[in-house]
Amino acid sequence: MEKIEQLERPKSVAVPEPTIRRMPQYLHFVKALHEQGEPFVSSTTIARMLRLDSTQVVKDMSYTGITGRTRVGFSTEELLHAIENFLGYNRKHEAFLVGAGYLGSALIQYNGFRDSGFKIVAAFDTDKKKIGTEIHGVPVFSLEKFRDLASRLHINIGIITTPAGVAQSIADLMVVWGIKAIWNFAPVAISVPENIIVQDTHIYSNLAVIINKLGQSNNR
Amino acid sequence: MEKIEQLERPKSVAVPEPTIRRMPQYLHFVKALHEQGEPFVSSTTIARMLRLDSTQVVKDMSYTGITGRTRVGFSTEELLHAIENFLGYNRKHEAFLVGAGYLGSALIQYNGFRDSGFKIVAAFDTDKKKIGTEIHGVPVFSLEKFRDLASRLHINIGIITTPAGVAQSIADLMVVWGIKAIWNFAPVAISVPENIIVQDTHIYSNLAVIINKLGQSNNR
Repeated sequence: MEKIEQLERPKSVAVPEPTIRRMPQYLHFVKALHEQGEPFVSSTTIARMLRLDSTQVVKDMSYTGITGRTRVGFSTEELLHAIENFLGYNRKHEAFLVGAGYLGSALIQYNGFRDSGFKIVAAFDTDKKKIGTEIHGVPVFSLEKFRDLASRLHINIGIITTPAGVAQSIADLMVVWGIKAIWNFAPVAISVPENIIVQDTHIYSNLAVIINKLGQSNNR
Repeated sequence: MEKIEQLERPKSVAVPEPTIRRMPQYLHFVKALHEQGEPFVSSTTIARMLRLDSTQVVKDMSYTGITGRTRVGFSTEELLHAIENFLGYNRKHEAFLVGAGYLGSALIQYNGFRDSGFKIVAAFDTDKKKIGTEIHGVPVFSLEKFRDLASRLHINIGIITTPAGVAQSIADLMVVWGIKAIWNFAPVAISVPENIIVQDTHIYSNLAVIINKLGQSNNR
């Protein structure tokens, strides 16, 4: 894992990963409250609604730099902005995707990322039938164009939605081509230098657990 | 978590969840080898290619009931069938999905599940504009039809792709309506009775970690 220096800006404090993973939950909940016209929310309410420990919620909130007021709690509007700022959702995050198959296309078509400032701006594939086409307005290029385009567009997030067998080679290339964070959807563990950020979303693994456990309960 | 009894059939042995989560990796790798015409593969090779510990691979393989041969290892064909059988991919697994938004539609359109016997056969929503339409051939029904259809079609897997705010109510309804396993894509923790299987795929959490860590490395 990367070494993180303590800097003065709150954003540079190393935040525990479980805290970061809970932030989108908080954001969705607080946004809903704010849209319903609720002016305040307490950490106790957040904890109860999201089924979390209330001490944990207080600690998580402290990382956003916000402080609640006695009795009323947090202003939902302030909290919303504090969490969005913490998550960096008020900035643009552009990504390149390699592997324009079913999953890649599904991710491109999925507009749920819009609010996070995250956008897949180009897809890459080795299949000549896909190169030159568009998926929901996102162009599909030959893999050879990746390096040049990534450099010109200052892209530092790469998404892998290739078959398992080529995922590691693609990850290796991405690192050489200047990608700083890899989001891997291929059903295989990839290995990268320590300074590269990797997040795995293994949809197949979740499915395997569901099917296996269902099989067990049916056999009982 | 559900209580699992030790039965005589190998499938009913409680297999550690990390083992189950690795199985799709093994499957993809062995399938690729088999398609390339490789007759045998050793656990050492599997371990090296998937960057796993070789003792772990041997242990994982033992759960599939297969035994390797001295020097040559496993027959790729036998291993392929053993893993598919272990994972239950040779059976049909039909699921209902609630929340026919962007993510729900993306999952329905994603054909990558075909090999696993897994299929989303119907979607449900409360939005009148969506009810009565089809997403890639999958009909979208009013939520009220869920119970009756689930019972008639013997559906025991429910997928939640709703906004965070309603995910828990949908989970509660699914349990009452006879669903045994819930695959939750909403960015919120859901709480269900102990005998219900739950798997969370929180895509937003992965994204939050990537963006946060990238922000930190840019600040260094």
